Amino acid sequence: MSKQSLSTQPYKGTRDFFPEQMQVRDAIFSQLRASVESYGYQAYDGPMLEPFELYAAKSGDEIVSEQLYSFEDRGKRKVAMRPEMTPTLARMVASRSNQLARPIRWYSIPNLWRYERPQRGRLREHWQLNVDLLGLASVEAEVEIVQVAIDLLRGFGAGISDFEVQINHRQLMDAVFEQKLALSSEQVPLVARAIDKRAKIEPAAFEKLLVEAGCKAQQIEDLNAFLVSPLMELEADFGDNPGFKDLCRFFDHVNAIGLGPVCRFNSSILRGLDYYTGIVFEIYDKHPDNRRALFGGGRYDNLVGMFGGEQIPGVGFGMGDVTLADFLDTHGILPQVSPSIDVMVGLFDASLFDLSQQIARQLRQAGLRVSSVLVPMKLGKQFQNADKQGIPIMVMLGPDEAQQGQVTVKHLKSGEQETLAQTSLVPYLQNLLA
Amino acid sequence: MSKQSLSTQPYKGTRDFFPEQMQVRDAIFSQLRASVESYGYQAYDGPMLEPFELYAAKSGDEIVSEQLYSFEDRGKRKVAMRPEMTPTLARMVASRSNQLARPIRWYSIPNLWRYERPQRGRLREHWQLNVDLLGLASVEAEVEIVQVAIDLLRGFGAGISDFEVQINHRQLMDAVFEQKLALSSEQVPLVARAIDKRAKIEPAAFEKLLVEAGCKAQQIEDLNAFLVSPLMELEADFGDNPGFKDLCRFFDHVNAIGLGPVCRFNSSILRGLDYYTGIVFEIYDKHPDNRRALFGGGRYDNLVGMFGGEQIPGVGFGMGDVTLADFLDTHGILPQVSPSIDVMVGLFDASLFDLSQQIARQLRQAGLRVSSVLVPMKLGKQFQNADKQGIPIMVMLGPDEAQQGQVTVKHLKSGEQETLAQTSLVPYLQNLLA
Repeated sequence: MSKQSLSTQPYKGTRDFFPEQMQVRDAIFSQLRASVESYGYQAYDGPMLEPFELYAAKSGDEIVSEQLYSFEDRGKRKVAMRPEMTPTLARMVASRSNQLARPIRWYSIPNLWRYERPQRGRLREHWQLNVDLLGLASVEAEVEIVQVAIDLLRGFGAGISDFEVQINHRQLMDAVFEQKLALSSEQVPLVARAIDKRAKIEPAAFEKLLVEAGCKAQQIEDLNAFLVSPLMELEADFGDNPGFKDLCRFFDHVNAIGLGPVCRFNSSILRGLDYYTGIVFEIYDKHPDNRRALFGGGRYDNLVGMFGGEQIPGVGFGMGDVTLADFLDTHGILPQVSPSIDVMVGLFDASLFDLSQQIARQLRQAGLRVSSVLVPMKLGKQFQNADKQGIPIMVMLGPDEAQQGQVTVKHLKSGEQETLAQTSLVPYLQNLLA
Repeated sequence: MSKQSLSTQPYKGTRDFFPEQMQVRDAIFSQLRASVESYGYQAYDGPMLEPFELYAAKSGDEIVSEQLYSFEDRGKRKVAMRPEMTPTLARMVASRSNQLARPIRWYSIPNLWRYERPQRGRLREHWQLNVDLLGLASVEAEVEIVQVAIDLLRGFGAGISDFEVQINHRQLMDAVFEQKLALSSEQVPLVARAIDKRAKIEPAAFEKLLVEAGCKAQQIEDLNAFLVSPLMELEADFGDNPGFKDLCRFFDHVNAIGLGPVCRFNSSILRGLDYYTGIVFEIYDKHPDNRRALFGGGRYDNLVGMFGGEQIPGVGFGMGDVTLADFLDTHGILPQVSPSIDVMVGLFDASLFDLSQQIARQLRQAGLRVSSVLVPMKLGKQFQNADKQGIPIMVMLGPDEAQQGQVTVKHLKSGEQETLAQTSLVPYLQNLLA
């Protein structure tokens, strides 16, 4: 292997996180953790590799056949790099379903892998916050999960008018498809796909898709009427539908709690057909430059049972890091990154290395974050380097100070400096940085 | 795929992190981060997958041929799951070597993959703290890195007599092998492997390995004499050796800084032959139940240059999470995990759901971590559930309290409770939990 052939670029569709990007990622993840932990959710994690069968059994066909990173290990076992976290969650919950206290409130921020053509917001490796509440079958669980989703964005400083939660119910849609429109089981996925595209295409194009799905004029008229109906007008036709009832209860609760203004019924929200069983929701960015679904989730009651044990009802959502960062950037609310070093201890000359290191150790033991100069260089250069790294304070020590048990503190912003006893340095700096 | 065939177990050699394990992992990683950040090191990360060539070019043969998780992606590109972090570090540094301010102080806690037979301390997926200081060629860099390593363990509460840093120098060993013993280039790795095993085997078995490596009686005698010599006694033979000089300077510094008692010269420490170029060190557990190398590192000056650009001198170490947890457990200093929820808001009956949720929201907005009961159940059961989760405080609200704008706070440890105005709840709890 010749040296020249080694590229310094990361694998296609992945990212290197240099310290400046890592600080932003850490700040975003910290905020996410604080938000979900404020609801009592606990962190979990699973392995990066899972048995291939875990995805073959449940994930969508497109993921398994076209996007999964799978291979045989050296023991001829077929494995896959996780493309999503929910199968791992279901496996873990199933493995301890008798011991785990209900309800289960868990979150994770795994990195996930999909073989995709890299484009804006779609990478081969991305991180995704997963928040799930398992063990409750009633709509109050959705009320909590939607609150968590809202407060995640609010926690970064997003305003109430920056985004909107659009909500629908799979059982209401089943009633529309099966009873009102009397679609065949072949037609349902085609019509669902048309509805999914509806917001992005012209009415005529939407109608064309429905015709292609085999819909008659009356069916198209009925569907169009349904899709523009407010929830309250659906009572006559769907008053007994459990999905309709759930939605009414859901909106009563969010209105009472004060979250009505960010929540809206939208019967065009469908999400994964095979997966969700109750309320589904998507969070939309309302910024004119970024009008798009940011993330979403819903109720899935059939997941844990695929391991053969009891069914456990669940509700949850996943939020990708790239989409979230786009949202924060668009709204000017990316977290501010603060300087990560409090003090630089300079080095006057090589003979003062040990004393300078002793002082740096003292400061660290007092809880300060301290970088130190290890090899002699011009003092001006030392100040410059510290300033470039955003370090506010430089501690210097020449032969005179060393002899007199003193130290000089330089404030790099103002250029001011003062000399004090080494024994006063810790309280002086603690006070300054408090 | 039938339901019964899906296992709930994680892939062999990997771990599921349920919340109780994840809390410990998070607590350990937080302490590691705090320690390295107190030295001004900055976090970075790279992708889980790298081009196969990155490892073929540098990692040991055993890793690439027997332990690497590598496969072809759907675009026929050969990729590997990272078995170690240093090649990624080198790639990233090489890609920006002109822009990065020197010295570079970086750390990362990646998960790494090796196909091994799972056993104590060896898993297929493990996490490893990597700490590296690049851009300084002199031994003061090693003085800092060894300080960081020491303070990592001290940060968890390890005592000065719980562990020891054993230090050697590759250039000193080169002089022994090439000049003093005049070994051939074929003999060097064999003799090195024998020295590596020396502490774990009988003197006779050690001698046998040397004989098998083609060593004559005089060579064996000279090597044995060398291996038991204190550093100071090597001056006559090696006084001009740059490795010997580095070691003397290193020990002068650590003695002056006060770390002499934890550092010891040990000429049996070798580590990866192809990789390290200067000082090498290993941290040993001194506990009688766990006498073993915990982790180690050293100077590698030839790494970044494999991308064709300039060479950048470096020094660093890697520390595995399993080994570290064993050490902390053996010494009884695993981090204490504190309860992650401050308050449980109970639910008297369904009619009080919205009001209870409003109160929970208020508490969260005040910075508290609040779980809430979402479906009605017996009050005794609610107290029990909260107590089981280690939640210290329960907030309850019946119809009388609701009408009078009051709320009852129950202390689950003592069973005491008191009723107060809803408007006083936030300051009351903040004061209680402060």
